[in-house]
Amino acid sequence: MDATTRLEGLEVGYDVPALPGMDETEIQTPCLVLDLDALERNIIKMGEQAKSMGVRHRVHGKMHKSVDVAKLQERLGGAVGVCCQKVSEAEAFARGGIKDVLISNQVRDPLKIDRLARMPKLGARTICCVDDAANIADLSQAAVRHGTMVECLVEIDCGAGRCGVSTTKDVVALAQGIAAAKGLKFAGLQAYQGAMQHLPAYADRKAKIDIAVAMVREAVDALKATGLECDIIGGGGTGSYQFEGQSGLYNELQCGSYAFMDADYGRILDADGKRIDETGFENALFLLTSVMSHVKEGKAICDAGLKVQSMDSGLPVVFGRDDVRYVACSDEHGEIADPENVLAINDRLRLVPGHCDPTCNLHDWYVGVRGGKVECLWPVSARGKAF
Amino acid sequence: MDATTRLEGLEVGYDVPALPGMDETEIQTPCLVLDLDALERNIIKMGEQAKSMGVRHRVHGKMHKSVDVAKLQERLGGAVGVCCQKVSEAEAFARGGIKDVLISNQVRDPLKIDRLARMPKLGARTICCVDDAANIADLSQAAVRHGTMVECLVEIDCGAGRCGVSTTKDVVALAQGIAAAKGLKFAGLQAYQGAMQHLPAYADRKAKIDIAVAMVREAVDALKATGLECDIIGGGGTGSYQFEGQSGLYNELQCGSYAFMDADYGRILDADGKRIDETGFENALFLLTSVMSHVKEGKAICDAGLKVQSMDSGLPVVFGRDDVRYVACSDEHGEIADPENVLAINDRLRLVPGHCDPTCNLHDWYVGVRGGKVECLWPVSARGKAF
Repeated sequence: MDATTRLEGLEVGYDVPALPGMDETEIQTPCLVLDLDALERNIIKMGEQAKSMGVRHRVHGKMHKSVDVAKLQERLGGAVGVCCQKVSEAEAFARGGIKDVLISNQVRDPLKIDRLARMPKLGARTICCVDDAANIADLSQAAVRHGTMVECLVEIDCGAGRCGVSTTKDVVALAQGIAAAKGLKFAGLQAYQGAMQHLPAYADRKAKIDIAVAMVREAVDALKATGLECDIIGGGGTGSYQFEGQSGLYNELQCGSYAFMDADYGRILDADGKRIDETGFENALFLLTSVMSHVKEGKAICDAGLKVQSMDSGLPVVFGRDDVRYVACSDEHGEIADPENVLAINDRLRLVPGHCDPTCNLHDWYVGVRGGKVECLWPVSARGKAF
Repeated sequence: MDATTRLEGLEVGYDVPALPGMDETEIQTPCLVLDLDALERNIIKMGEQAKSMGVRHRVHGKMHKSVDVAKLQERLGGAVGVCCQKVSEAEAFARGGIKDVLISNQVRDPLKIDRLARMPKLGARTICCVDDAANIADLSQAAVRHGTMVECLVEIDCGAGRCGVSTTKDVVALAQGIAAAKGLKFAGLQAYQGAMQHLPAYADRKAKIDIAVAMVREAVDALKATGLECDIIGGGGTGSYQFEGQSGLYNELQCGSYAFMDADYGRILDADGKRIDETGFENALFLLTSVMSHVKEGKAICDAGLKVQSMDSGLPVVFGRDDVRYVACSDEHGEIADPENVLAINDRLRLVPGHCDPTCNLHDWYVGVRGGKVECLWPVSARGKAF
């Protein structure tokens, strides 16, 4: 177990769902369980792919929010650091010992900017995104105030339609502003095409990424013409990393979900039309639930409802079974269609959550299991760190 | 501030969103804000209504998960205790000083049953629900083992289609089983019609509750005939409490959302066809968010996405404004339609969450404000207590 985890005095069933050494059957439900073998295979596989494509991998910590998982990704998958989305989340990673942290988002609030500028004192390279010239002066003043250096990526909106600038002219103007500002360093481009990651068809995802790559290429060329090099050209998620990795342009991938997987990513298809949870990455994250009422024919009620999983990408899938199905979710309960009434009270089911990121953010702990035993208990280090 | 809240050494922006005494404009976003004046008015109003109908009010703590709010409901609203849904949640309330705790749910796991049976030692009357004869022996053995008494309600399924028995015969058999078991006490009936609470039309809700009342009346009469009295006949939520309260049958209401309100409950109508957030209960809970990017015409991006609010009941509503609208939600961001481009970076918006219960469960703190100042910081005491 990681040394950062202190478990003395914690009570199973109140503070924590399990303790290392326990039998898997003793875990208190509902809780998140990690299949450590599957997790390690996913991490190694992605590390090998990044290496073979000649790109770095900066894992997206916003998915798991766990210092322990990020360190495993560094150790087994050669990850160069993490990205995340919020300053408080970045602080959690930096305090936990991650030495290279990108906030792949804008930081605008004065107190947040101040905290960001103090982050290098925690020992972490600190990078954020910029899409507005007015932000540059604020970031610069804070870095100068603390005697630190904050690196900045210009964010290009290459399809998500949210943050980020849309023209090469804007990219160059912001990059020049950053390069000229005291306390700041222009570090490159953030170009994550988030909106296409979950499109099921490979060709649809490829078409979207081709547009993004063309935008980024134009920006990189224009920056070069003004003498600005991009240390980082970052982007790519579980649904697209092969496109960015093979673009000859991007040099840092930012995949998150591949490590745990979820029902939604499981449904996307690779180039051969196969589901990526069959050919690519395995389900390593499960929401363990128990049957707690079964007084009706054909219907069991389990203890996993809305408060332990996010429903934004649909219902969870019952792992490894086709005789029962999770069919409805309320605040505290899940309804399991059990047409043959095979389920008994206290039977356990492993659910594959619809969407891993917001589901992980509901929990305080990951219970790591291997060979039927609880091997570790990892805190969801940055859970709730939304500021 | 409540004495249970210890704030020494906490850092604003990392551990907590604000500290008492701060100006409201200094609160770090995104976070939950309570309008204390509105909250107190809601609590007093419901307390008065319960009193005028001659029924007790056992507030539903599963909504707010806060010891501080529950104590305010006891002090200002005459609440007799709380209900909640999980053993670990009940323990949080009992440890916090609530003396009468109903778990309005089944408890089946052996470790959970053991914890339940120890709860009276925390000084709290302990009540749970039963819908299966096999549960009675397990509960009884645990209570005897710990030398405590657990009170049990028989749960009637009066329309939710989840847990609970459906016939008077089953109710009587379970009640007799409980009454005969060592360490247990038959305490009455749980009959919450959850499925109808959110039906917008008053007449539709009334029709559903009439069915429930008829089922409960039959059960109460049959129990009386066997010599069993119901100390508690409990049920009723924010969308129905007037029906149960005036039934002459129910004696304990179990309302939760009325205290905070949310966008979904705001849309339900009273007997006169008026929205209950206009004539009944005020919005006291807000998700405070800031604009953090606005590089596109007509569209602002705020810092409140899926990780700080539950989308199961739809998008949040921007409070007090009709010039801007929250139109899309991703993991970390909200998209605000701003057709006149009136919003500037760091502008604050108060969002009314679609569904209060699972939204509160995402946060560690409530920031209580009054007159533009932060008055208190209350922990979401039972956040994540899902075991």
